[in-house]
Amino acid sequence: MSVQPIIGRNVVIEDDVTFGVNVVIGHNTVILKGTQIGDNVEIGANCVLGITPGGNKRMRQQTLASQPLIIGNHTTIGNMASIYLNTTIAENVFIGDHASIRENVSIGKGTVIGRNAIVELNTTIGQNCTIQTLSYITGDTILEDEVFIGPCVSMANDKYMGAKDYLLKGPHLKKGVKVGNNATLLPAVTIGAGTIVGGGSVVTKDVGDHLIIAGVPARELK
Amino acid sequence: MSVQPIIGRNVVIEDDVTFGVNVVIGHNTVILKGTQIGDNVEIGANCVLGITPGGNKRMRQQTLASQPLIIGNHTTIGNMASIYLNTTIAENVFIGDHASIRENVSIGKGTVIGRNAIVELNTTIGQNCTIQTLSYITGDTILEDEVFIGPCVSMANDKYMGAKDYLLKGPHLKKGVKVGNNATLLPAVTIGAGTIVGGGSVVTKDVGDHLIIAGVPARELK
Amino acid sequence: MSVQPIIGRNVVIEDDVTFGVNVVIGHNTVILKGTQIGDNVEIGANCVLGITPGGNKRMRQQTLASQPLIIGNHTTIGNMASIYLNTTIAENVFIGDHASIRENVSIGKGTVIGRNAIVELNTTIGQNCTIQTLSYITGDTILEDEVFIGPCVSMANDKYMGAKDYLLKGPHLKKGVKVGNNATLLPAVTIGAGTIVGGGSVVTKDVGDHLIIAGVPARELK
Repeated sequence: MSVQPIIGRNVVIEDDVTFGVNVVIGHNTVILKGTQIGDNVEIGANCVLGITPGGNKRMRQQTLASQPLIIGNHTTIGNMASIYLNTTIAENVFIGDHASIRENVSIGKGTVIGRNAIVELNTTIGQNCTIQTLSYITGDTILEDEVFIGPCVSMANDKYMGAKDYLLKGPHLKKGVKVGNNATLLPAVTIGAGTIVGGGSVVTKDVGDHLIIAGVPARELK
Repeated sequence: MSVQPIIGRNVVIEDDVTFGVNVVIGHNTVILKGTQIGDNVEIGANCVLGITPGGNKRMRQQTLASQPLIIGNHTTIGNMASIYLNTTIAENVFIGDHASIRENVSIGKGTVIGRNAIVELNTTIGQNCTIQTLSYITGDTILEDEVFIGPCVSMANDKYMGAKDYLLKGPHLKKGVKVGNNATLLPAVTIGAGTIVGGGSVVTKDVGDHLIIAGVPARELK
Repeated sequence: MSVQPIIGRNVVIEDDVTFGVNVVIGHNTVILKGTQIGDNVEIGANCVLGITPGGNKRMRQQTLASQPLIIGNHTTIGNMASIYLNTTIAENVFIGDHASIRENVSIGKGTVIGRNAIVELNTTIGQNCTIQTLSYITGDTILEDEVFIGPCVSMANDKYMGAKDYLLKGPHLKKGVKVGNNATLLPAVTIGAGTIVGGGSVVTKDVGDHLIIAGVPARELK
């Protein structure tokens, strides 16, 4: 057991970062103020963890409770990942290279976030989900447990596309939904438990439980 | 007011880089030769700025006027962004984490470039545009002012897909166009002012002003 | 001729890395144990090369012959790229910024891998291919020589979307296939030599040689 973390070269660790036992941190990684890292966590090279949100005048601002980034036991993070503060990552999670996760996100235990996948702010992802490479989980989204998101899936949360201020709402995918690669989910759609969405489909409205849907727009396959 | 930039650890600053006042640069960021940084600019960690184009024998080469990367006042750049030389970024721009912007690009003031969005060479983006996360703005493209590009939008500029040498041409989106998530724009399409393109659509030909289009191929909604 | 590599600042080079002549390595790049770099290779800044695969309990594991990452002569790698061990990259290859290439991959000479493109494990890419920006080449895939993949193309290799264990199989694209931007290829489809797939198409089944196909699902254009 290694009480002190094993730290690569040129690693930057800011103040008030805490480490469990058996932590390994790759070269050139940056861990920002206050980040809390559990036991048996492995972090790759050139990551930036614990980022404070920025923005310009045209972007929505929110007041954040000043909570740190918390990384659970036995979680593994790849190389060049970026993760914000005020986010909680549970145990046994895997986060791939180049992935990016914003603030106010919760990721359940056993979930896999693929390489270059992006999770936006205010989103909740359940346990044992798989979010494959290059998929985009928009803000204000709920993925329940055991959801499978294929590669390059796209979601949106703003039906007015920036034209007015309103309460943004992303998709809600119930337990066990599976979405094929490069499917498009429009803002605020709800997809029922166990439903399968074919690759390349465009989901434009709410869908019931245990269906198989595909096409543009997506319709039930008979 | 801080006349000297506030510079993180392990930052590399090459020769002839200039800084305005109140500049902040994150840990492990690399700023290459000649880059010009304005006042009140914030740059995140692990970025690479001022890159000289490379390539192999099969890629198009162009002779560049040797202009630096210029970053305007009050502009914010996230973490792990890559930006080339000979590009000008105006004031009050926001560039997200993992974004990449090539040479010979101009970005107007107030514009937001999302995380992991990519802007290719020889492209002009107007003022107060929003390019959301994971969108791809191809080379030789014009986005006029106030264009909104949803997440995961794709564009192309080569209708022969590498089969012959010709003058590449990307899309031209006129003022206030809005494009929904994961839409596909084929090479050289022009989209008229104020037109709205639905999420998941494939735009195959020129479209007039102030229309709403959707589908594969995209057609006007009645 | 420079016998010793020209190495930027804060570069980390682990044990048993070998260099040919005239090698240039950018600032803050990390080269992990055993990586073999040929002659006249240029590598950008903030890369991580020679990565050992990780994972969590829910991800497939494979026993790897412990081969290094091998990078051929005259190959150029951009900035912030991540490449795994047990992969061979031939001569005169170009790999763009933010690109990521997994283990057990072979890339033929003269091939271009675009910025932010991702190549998954156990995939073979032939000579003189072009994989454009943000495209996703899934695992267990074959791209023969002279294949052109436009930007934002998506592929899948798991028709059960994680629901059962079976032998994953990605697409097989024969010599000279061209795929337009943001097209979707479903698992295990074979596309015949010289066939052209339109932008935004969804390819759901095998396709013959020298056809032009487009649409959702993709059909031959008459």
